[in-house]
Amino acid sequence: MFISFEGIDGSGKTTQAKLLKVNLEKLGFNVILTKEPGGTELGSYIRKILLNVEMDPVSEFLLFASDRKTHVKEVIKPFLSKGFTVISDRFHDSSVAYQGYGRGVPLDFIYYVHNFILEGIIPNITVLVDIDENLSFERIKDADRIERLGIDFLRNVRKGYLKIAKNEDRFFVIDGSKTVEELEEIILNKVLEKLK
Amino acid sequence: MFISFEGIDGSGKTTQAKLLKVNLEKLGFNVILTKEPGGTELGSYIRKILLNVEMDPVSEFLLFASDRKTHVKEVIKPFLSKGFTVISDRFHDSSVAYQGYGRGVPLDFIYYVHNFILEGIIPNITVLVDIDENLSFERIKDADRIERLGIDFLRNVRKGYLKIAKNEDRFFVIDGSKTVEELEEIILNKVLEKLK
Repeated sequence: MFISFEGIDGSGKTTQAKLLKVNLEKLGFNVILTKEPGGTELGSYIRKILLNVEMDPVSEFLLFASDRKTHVKEVIKPFLSKGFTVISDRFHDSSVAYQGYGRGVPLDFIYYVHNFILEGIIPNITVLVDIDENLSFERIKDADRIERLGIDFLRNVRKGYLKIAKNEDRFFVIDGSKTVEELEEIILNKVLEKLK
Repeated sequence: MFISFEGIDGSGKTTQAKLLKVNLEKLGFNVILTKEPGGTELGSYIRKILLNVEMDPVSEFLLFASDRKTHVKEVIKPFLSKGFTVISDRFHDSSVAYQGYGRGVPLDFIYYVHNFILEGIIPNITVLVDIDENLSFERIKDADRIERLGIDFLRNVRKGYLKIAKNEDRFFVIDGSKTVEELEEIILNKVLEKLK
């Protein structure tokens, strides 16, 4: 089982990904929690670049794609084949939402590259923690590169996420303005239901 | 006029690219010499990664492609539109030869990504400084990541370059075992002939 968490900055998805790991482990599952970018040695280098260099949206997408290819090959695939439940804090939908809907990289190009690099590895469940872009802004404390792009950008990314979610059955959209505890319970129940 | 220099490690192309710049400037041309990876801020970060991290060939190609997109947009296109002659020490053929023929990334994928990122910017002349892979090995002093891949790898890359050159009129293949001065003169004459 491969579960990805998606959402705009400040949505609380990282907290929820961690809680889901703990809750599944309590139930006896072998779980690995990973993230993008940064789940591999290459990814940690790429993460630094993304935080430090302003760049063209296509270059940005290609960096994420480079990381994603190695992430799939070195982390996600091996753990899935060992029977682990893999939880990833962000995966390919982040590029569609951020570089595609947010920064204007043609979706066709993104889909083509993903189709090539993912080798059929698509999440079974994608939890989209949806929040209003204004709430995102309130919650964000450190303004990093992407956050500096502003509220219009986050609005477009959010809209993008909701569009993708509409078209794909694997999505489970939850209202990120609920409490941490409420979200934790909803997500765990949904995942257990899928596992049956 | 956009001129790229290509060849396997140790071919002497970097020296020849520099000499061509000096020679064209003596004749009154405005010339910029750039390189891949490393011709931009992003490129200098990517160069460091490539020297330090062993990685999947597709991830490697995507890093080069990320750099290339920004290189075209920030350096090559602006200088060409200002009337400069742009000389690049390595360009897109390096990926076809190294990641494609050398490391097995499907050529279709490389061509598709290049077609998207180059925006029609293709060199008018590509100087391929061709040397035997054994000579390459003799000349290489520092064994960096790619060089450590060995002589079979360099042989495949060389063969790849020669295949590309056969199919494209813009290529000018020269024998890199000649002296620096001989090569300098041959290259300058060829470029001036093309400029007429």
